[in-house]
Amino acid sequence: MNCLSRRLILKPPFHSNPTLNFPSINVSKPISIHKKRKLFANSAITSLVHHPLSGAEEDLVGYVFGKKKATEVAHLIWKRVVQNGDTVIDATCGNGYDTLAMLKMVADESGRGRVYGIDIQGDALKRTASLLDESVTLKEKELVKLFSICHSRMEEIVPENSPVRLVAFNLGYLPGGDKTTTTVSETTQLALEAAKKILIPGGLISLVVYVGHPGGMEELETVEAFASGLPVNNWICCKFLMLNRPLAPVLVLLFKREVAETQ
Amino acid sequence: MNCLSRRLILKPPFHSNPTLNFPSINVSKPISIHKKRKLFANSAITSLVHHPLSGAEEDLVGYVFGKKKATEVAHLIWKRVVQNGDTVIDATCGNGYDTLAMLKMVADESGRGRVYGIDIQGDALKRTASLLDESVTLKEKELVKLFSICHSRMEEIVPENSPVRLVAFNLGYLPGGDKTTTTVSETTQLALEAAKKILIPGGLISLVVYVGHPGGMEELETVEAFASGLPVNNWICCKFLMLNRPLAPVLVLLFKREVAETQ
Repeated sequence: MNCLSRRLILKPPFHSNPTLNFPSINVSKPISIHKKRKLFANSAITSLVHHPLSGAEEDLVGYVFGKKKATEVAHLIWKRVVQNGDTVIDATCGNGYDTLAMLKMVADESGRGRVYGIDIQGDALKRTASLLDESVTLKEKELVKLFSICHSRMEEIVPENSPVRLVAFNLGYLPGGDKTTTTVSETTQLALEAAKKILIPGGLISLVVYVGHPGGMEELETVEAFASGLPVNNWICCKFLMLNRPLAPVLVLLFKREVAETQ
Repeated sequence: MNCLSRRLILKPPFHSNPTLNFPSINVSKPISIHKKRKLFANSAITSLVHHPLSGAEEDLVGYVFGKKKATEVAHLIWKRVVQNGDTVIDATCGNGYDTLAMLKMVADESGRGRVYGIDIQGDALKRTASLLDESVTLKEKELVKLFSICHSRMEEIVPENSPVRLVAFNLGYLPGGDKTTTTVSETTQLALEAAKKILIPGGLISLVVYVGHPGGMEELETVEAFASGLPVNNWICCKFLMLNRPLAPVLVLLFKREVAETQ
């Protein structure tokens, strides 16, 4: 496919000669079912059929077409992972929207679900609590535990026998709050290491990284370095970003495989 | 959310005090429908309802969970954009899988659809033609036009009155072919500029960039620089990649908005 040479002579279009257009190589050779399966790249959709995460859920296509934001995509992915009764962590409560979304995912009649909400800023926790007051029942509220600590200390607040299915981060500053107070690389690194320790197989670390503040790019680099170092047989680490909106939030998803790949 | 200071005294968990856990700020204030809508980040899913690209199609979630490859995600996105009767371009035919997938998307009874397949390597076009011979009807085959030219010259082969809905690239070398012959940054840049010119609003430039060969990273940088320069009011340019698989192909999607954004 090298087409650097500008001296190349243009060959006549293949379609001007039907035999060139469709050379009859292997035409008569019957194609096996196995080969046919390999031929169609998009046939792998069927490989999802027996996957526990498959189903007729919402899709992420809206992101590509500018109809969904990174945070919305994150929520859709969470819904594929989180089940009623799960323990999850909102590592950066902010205004509480993620805490609320998580609560809706884990709450059920059993009352086993737990959302551990963390924010170093008391104001953020007040906003989160206020949002919950407005939006959920008293019984649901009791499933949420809010802590005014650094997210790097999440291990201290989750009981040992609580397998954690999701740890979610919004990295940056509190929207509508003090823009000079932001998450920083050093503690985010520690928080990621803590999250890695307590996450169960089949769990997810989700990060929406706001890069439009001083230190934002450095923090993204920290996240990427952490993700890059996770072993491929245990972790699937992907990143979604907008190329022509350099300050738009970047979505990083670190999925811990249910069963480690052997190869 | 700044939690850099290690001297911070751990406050008691908020949940030990119900009033702190859920401060009663604004509890009595009724919440308006408008505010409620704003509160739930994931409610924006509903904004897709009247979008021409919405529907109950397959989703991209499999990518996040390691069940779908970049090429498969690309095909899913194409299906959202391409319609029967459209004109599309496979700028790098390779083994022909993309050409075949595109043909299935544009072919209908009207016979208006066209797939222009390009590859500088004759061997690639032979493989493509052979795959089509094995997989489609004679009538469908007639909708495909194959050209052994550089992809930077795509404007020369598409008739002027053919609005192009999709231009797809697989950048790298021909799988199973000569690995020393690869696409290169200089002509890929020209090809992208050509694709930009002939693409209609609502159309897509799709690139799967294989970076695991010498020059692969340079070519990705060329693609990213091109994408970064496209105006945000006309183009949505996103990138999907695997952070812990540095040689895995990178998916870049450049969607030309149907209607330019005014802000």
